Amino acid sequence: MTIESKKTSLSVAIMNEIVLPNDTNTFNNLMGGRLLHWMDIAAAITAQKHSGKLAVTASVDSVSFKKSIKLGDVVTLEARIVRSFNTSMEVHITVWAENIQSGEKFKSNEAYYTFVALDRNGSPVGVPAVIPENEEEQKRYEGALRRRQLRLILAGKMKPDDATELKALFFPESDQA
Amino acid sequence: MTIESKKTSLSVAIMNEIVLPNDTNTFNNLMGGRLLHWMDIAAAITAQKHSGKLAVTASVDSVSFKKSIKLGDVVTLEARIVRSFNTSMEVHITVWAENIQSGEKFKSNEAYYTFVALDRNGSPVGVPAVIPENEEEQKRYEGALRRRQLRLILAGKMKPDDATELKALFFPESDQA
Amino acid sequence: MTIESKKTSLSVAIMNEIVLPNDTNTFNNLMGGRLLHWMDIAAAITAQKHSGKLAVTASVDSVSFKKSIKLGDVVTLEARIVRSFNTSMEVHITVWAENIQSGEKFKSNEAYYTFVALDRNGSPVGVPAVIPENEEEQKRYEGALRRRQLRLILAGKMKPDDATELKALFFPESDQA
Amino acid sequence: MTIESKKTSLSVAIMNEIVLPNDTNTFNNLMGGRLLHWMDIAAAITAQKHSGKLAVTASVDSVSFKKSIKLGDVVTLEARIVRSFNTSMEVHITVWAENIQSGEKFKSNEAYYTFVALDRNGSPVGVPAVIPENEEEQKRYEGALRRRQLRLILAGKMKPDDATELKALFFPESDQA
Amino acid sequence: MTIESKKTSLSVAIMNEIVLPNDTNTFNNLMGGRLLHWMDIAAAITAQKHSGKLAVTASVDSVSFKKSIKLGDVVTLEARIVRSFNTSMEVHITVWAENIQSGEKFKSNEAYYTFVALDRNGSPVGVPAVIPENEEEQKRYEGALRRRQLRLILAGKMKPDDATELKALFFPESDQA
Amino acid sequence: MTIESKKTSLSVAIMNEIVLPNDTNTFNNLMGGRLLHWMDIAAAITAQKHSGKLAVTASVDSVSFKKSIKLGDVVTLEARIVRSFNTSMEVHITVWAENIQSGEKFKSNEAYYTFVALDRNGSPVGVPAVIPENEEEQKRYEGALRRRQLRLILAGKMKPDDATELKALFFPESDQA
Repeated sequence: MTIESKKTSLSVAIMNEIVLPNDTNTFNNLMGGRLLHWMDIAAAITAQKHSGKLAVTASVDSVSFKKSIKLGDVVTLEARIVRSFNTSMEVHITVWAENIQSGEKFKSNEAYYTFVALDRNGSPVGVPAVIPENEEEQKRYEGALRRRQLRLILAGKMKPDDATELKALFFPESDQA
Repeated sequence: MTIESKKTSLSVAIMNEIVLPNDTNTFNNLMGGRLLHWMDIAAAITAQKHSGKLAVTASVDSVSFKKSIKLGDVVTLEARIVRSFNTSMEVHITVWAENIQSGEKFKSNEAYYTFVALDRNGSPVGVPAVIPENEEEQKRYEGALRRRQLRLILAGKMKPDDATELKALFFPESDQA
Repeated sequence: MTIESKKTSLSVAIMNEIVLPNDTNTFNNLMGGRLLHWMDIAAAITAQKHSGKLAVTASVDSVSFKKSIKLGDVVTLEARIVRSFNTSMEVHITVWAENIQSGEKFKSNEAYYTFVALDRNGSPVGVPAVIPENEEEQKRYEGALRRRQLRLILAGKMKPDDATELKALFFPESDQA
Repeated sequence: MTIESKKTSLSVAIMNEIVLPNDTNTFNNLMGGRLLHWMDIAAAITAQKHSGKLAVTASVDSVSFKKSIKLGDVVTLEARIVRSFNTSMEVHITVWAENIQSGEKFKSNEAYYTFVALDRNGSPVGVPAVIPENEEEQKRYEGALRRRQLRLILAGKMKPDDATELKALFFPESDQA
Repeated sequence: MTIESKKTSLSVAIMNEIVLPNDTNTFNNLMGGRLLHWMDIAAAITAQKHSGKLAVTASVDSVSFKKSIKLGDVVTLEARIVRSFNTSMEVHITVWAENIQSGEKFKSNEAYYTFVALDRNGSPVGVPAVIPENEEEQKRYEGALRRRQLRLILAGKMKPDDATELKALFFPESDQA
Repeated sequence: MTIESKKTSLSVAIMNEIVLPNDTNTFNNLMGGRLLHWMDIAAAITAQKHSGKLAVTASVDSVSFKKSIKLGDVVTLEARIVRSFNTSMEVHITVWAENIQSGEKFKSNEAYYTFVALDRNGSPVGVPAVIPENEEEQKRYEGALRRRQLRLILAGKMKPDDATELKALFFPESDQA
């Protein structure tokens, strides 16, 4: 049985959170760990909507925290499916923070989480292919192969030399070599 | 200084939540009190975005819980500003629940919360008027007066006889009188 | 099998809570949503004690938040059964707030929640009738019919014109009409 | 300035809690640590009501957990002031557990917590003496001296030999000496 | 089947926690009840590691809170098995607090918790004997009998006069009597 | 003023956690987001101990979740400082999971988090250099440069061509060039 491909817009997940005292460190800034947790929930919803299956976190790519989010700020997370590989899915999450009184709003983070879809017995199960709906999504769809190679290398499951997609990114000149 | 009117779409707040064990009762159903809490947060975000001020809950209108939401379901809340009255705002919240594996999705609840905008000293402060953007929003905008009269009567601050808008609901024929 | 009637005093539930940082907004005031959640728990205990069954929230009537409760205040909730209707129960909750250092104590809120009693399979099950024990409880017992009509109207399950009890409250003169 | 004595009934604190999933261990029993936390909150409310000051936990006497409390049970805590010593107060807490469906209710625990009242600068401050209101409270009032000596010995602040009240417990015959 | 004895070092549990806003009272001090809860979790891990069984809290001995731990401090808990009695185990917990910026670190508390090991049906089950590994542990091992007698007396399960170990501690001279 | 170098063993942070219901998904497995949050807390403690300053999360490197951790399992996290770069620090975290009844214990995850030390005004402040204490730590110390280049490239702050350390990983042969 083939699984029908699905458009990205069918599984978008949006979360709004207000930064509460227990989410913050001694500087009244949102703690990184709490944000990673929120991102995981938003991405899990997208993965589950896309696959129609329960899905568990397989990995998170590197995330950097550039600018602090303050107590009382409104945080918006938007999770979108990027690409699927058999039983796994890559989800892209964007995080914005907004200060209510100043009206200042900025993009705080981006991240890629991957999930594995599971059937009722907890075994991996196939998921629909992804249909990107705009240029940005198309670009992320293509980059997914490269990021996957990086994950495999970092997990020691692929030799750097075999990561052709990734090499092309880092060392374009060596492609012709 | 007059405050510019604002469109409803500028302050929409969306929240997605996965129902976790501590959100449920002994039947593995989402507890009503937890949902009321989530609605309050979603509505507060909308009120704060619309006013650009911190806003505190002034009241919640009656809410009914018809169908149970189960452990693991994805809950989506959408909060939209309805109308403002000087320093207060009425926000409408719709709640959907979705079972991931069956794909079943249903509208679970609707509610109206009102908020008061406050300045940095905690005093009520004026908020922008609301510009409804479609027929449904227009209808809710008009009903807001009626709901406000009902709140004032229930709070003992208005005599039923003065509630002309509300009377029209109970005695439509007397409208022509 | 008929179910014996039960006195209200047998199912009173009292809760004391200290307002902690995560319960508060940026003004150090207790958030409305948290209080609605606490009220739901207190009322659920009363409904479960009265019925001897698990009970789930069916609705909450409108609640208004007049005066802010501050961080560190002691909140006292008292839930009392008002009246039962076959498988459902109306519970009245009173909320007081007390500042420890000033000794100031004030009634913060009142609310009506309704619950449905369920058997082990989750099906509605009959509950005992309520025996009010003082004048105030008797008055609330009588008002329960009226509030029930208002709930049915607001839920679109009753036409305003059929709500004879409710009409009498709002527009006493029209009774004679 | 002398501080007026206060009756015990003026500072009773009652808490009802429903045992939720996160409060339980793998056997679906309420965890001891969670109950100790609830007891601390109930006792703190009583100590703060009695003293009209903020109060912090100074010690908890030994507590034993005889019978397990189950998921979904309603837990009732009642805290009562026992006796005060200058700036400290001993509070007695009784815990009951009730199974809703079976109707079974049993006394689960008793404990003594002590608190120190603090002024706004965090310095210990005098508290009212306690007026016991029945025989049981009178008996606990008298036992407070003995428990205090035990605490001081256990904390290495009193020599066992000076603990005349406590000695009487171990060697009742020596009382007549 | 005899159960092999186990060394204490095999079941040490260490926890580090940062004191967050919701863990504190109005003075920004860690609340006693929260610390009792953390101690219970640390001790439960040790009891479960030592026994290889699930274990539930049977009692906590008296604990005193001498010096306040502040918001943002790092709390370290170390739990070590002391001695076992058939199906129960005594665990010793030490708590340190450390202020990051001043570098100040102090021992905040010590406590003894006892646990009962349970099989899958929830019945008590035998646990390994304990092999102390240094002088301090040996001393605590020996004191365990005495503390057990105190617990039994406080629980009304032993007459003070039969507590020979305990009497010797408090009133050494009377031993010769 | 130069800052003295510090040994790794002076800032190790260990955390033990029991997986509770709210930490798990519908399969009773620990959720990835919760684990990322715990890792962040453990690593923050290490960064703060090493620097003697408050420290905030700057980034997390990619983390993969290979094997599920179950409800009731004991999770052990060990965080160790790897290397510092002026005001930032790289921390390595290892996570083990242990099933109490089967005694099975396995390494679940490894991750690198980076932190920035801040003074009381929230400005970055210099931190001590790190002295590795064994071969494994020495190896991680040396790899830190490479991981830093990867982070800079992924954040768009360094051109792949300038990442000499990283290139050596992909093209070991070009090292000799």
